[in-house]
This record gives sequence, C-alpha cells and structure tokens, in this order.
Amino acid sequence: MIAGVEVTPLKIVSTPGGDVFHGIKANDDGFCGFGEAYFSTIQPSIIKPWKRHNRMTLNLVVIVGCIRFVVHDDRAGSPTQGLTESYVLGPHTNYCRLTVPPRVWMAFQGLSDTHSILLNVTDIPHDPKEVDRRTLGEIDYPWGIQ
Amino acid sequence: MIAGVEVTPLKIVSTPGGDVFHGIKANDDGFCGFGEAYFSTIQPSIIKPWKRHNRMTLNLVVIVGCIRFVVHDDRAGSPTQGLTESYVLGPHTNYCRLTVPPRVWMAFQGLSDTHSILLNVTDIPHDPKEVDRRTLGEIDYPWGIQ
Repeated sequence: MIAGVEVTPLKIVSTPGGDVFHGIKANDDGFCGFGEAYFSTIQPSIIKPWKRHNRMTLNLVVIVGCIRFVVHDDRAGSPTQGLTESYVLGPHTNYCRLTVPPRVWMAFQGLSDTHSILLNVTDIPHDPKEVDRRTLGEIDYPWGIQ
Repeated sequence: MIAGVEVTPLKIVSTPGGDVFHGIKANDDGFCGFGEAYFSTIQPSIIKPWKRHNRMTLNLVVIVGCIRFVVHDDRAGSPTQGLTESYVLGPHTNYCRLTVPPRVWMAFQGLSDTHSILLNVTDIPHDPKEVDRRTLGEIDYPWGIQ
C-alpha cells in the first residue's frame, strides 16, 4: 500500500428506523486535526481528474452509491514511489474510510447507477493555493476496466 | 429562536460532474471543537424520539432527502425556556447547518419518500453517559401536521 495511505473499516450501528454510520473520531488513526468537512457528489461514470494537496490530509467516506478512488505516488524518496492503487468504497459493500496524505495524487470515479456522495474530513480548510491538478491522461490508469 | 440554536445557510458549489456541498469549517460560527463526524439515516415518516446531550454540541447537515428537526428548551434560566421550534432541512430546498447546544432536547423525522441522511459533526466523541432520552409523547409536538 502507498506509504501514508490508510483504509480503515468503519462500523454501521443498526438502529430502529435508520442506522448510524461511523465516520471519524478525534482519537482515530488517520485523524490529524480538523479543518473542514464537506461533501462531493459525483455522477455515474464521471471521473474527477487528478488533484494533489500539498498540505492537506483527506479522510474520505462514501455514504451514498459507490466510488472508485485511484491514488498515485510520485513523491521523491517515497518507499512506494511510482505505485498506483485503487479502492472501491461505498456504504453497502465496503464501508471504510480512506486516508490520503499530502503530496499523493488522487482521482475518483462514480461507479453507481445514480449519483454517489462522499464526505471529506480534512485537517485544514480549503485553500486553492495548496492544490495541484493534472488532466486524466497525465497519469496512466486503465479507467475503463472495472 | 431558542438560545444557542443556530441555522447557518451553506454554500453549494457547482462543479462539472458533481457539486460540492459545504458542511462545516474550523473557523465557522457554531464550531466549538471536533470530536466526531457520523451519519444517521432515517426512513420515511419515522420519528427518532427526544434526546438531550448534556455536554455535546451538534452540528447537523442533511445531505440526502429531507428531515424535520424539532428542538425544545426546558433549561432552567434560559431566556427561551418552554419554547419548541422546528426546522426542515435538506440539500435541495433548505441547505443549512443546524447547531444544537448542550441541554436542548431534539427529535427528528424523515420527510422524504425514501430514506434521508444527516451528518452530525460533534465537539466530543460519542458518550452514552451524557445523553438523556424521553419518549415521543413526553414532550408535546404536533408531529402529524406537516
């Protein structure tokens, strides 16, 4: 697994009339401070291209639908430099939190028939100056293969 | 409005392939520390009965469906003691964050045809010892009237 990336299984607590889905606690592994919590929606088959946060750690939880996250490590000196990995997450099949450390590239794709929704709990508030972007083709990944 | 309760309109940022829905930032009004982020789902018409957190502040965001929150203040010495108020929130009609301070009662009802989902960002991790409960009938509210 790419150095610093973590996949943490999360509990679903069955409750009459509607369940409770754990997200992240202040004393969990992967938590390194609170900056912001926001949602991103993604339409079926759409791919949101590569982004790299230079200071922010992401904690991603998919609460609706199903999303494929692909992470790519091009950090100089990283023990996993050059590695690309993917994780398919959703509330019904693989309810986990994905932690992505700073300076790792990430892109994601909606795999559900309807839209999917992720929660991102970050350690710093949104700052466009700490984000780098690449087009989809700039980092090789076989998106068409499920 | 009940003392300490806040309703904060939240931004929805239109983005190709799927929008971004703001939740809560560390420097927002109503934020008083991070303890936990979790989801609750609620089935149509179901009412989750009264709970009072004695230490926890709730920050509630409805990301799927539509939920009615009813809050009741029986705090001795509160300027709004005896008041009951309701708020109907959802991503499409009234995308706001509801802040509920400690010692205020809260119950909620799913108003959507399908299930609804809320995010709660709290200032302390879950602790069953700081929660009091009442049955639905113990605090008067006309739930049948939309």
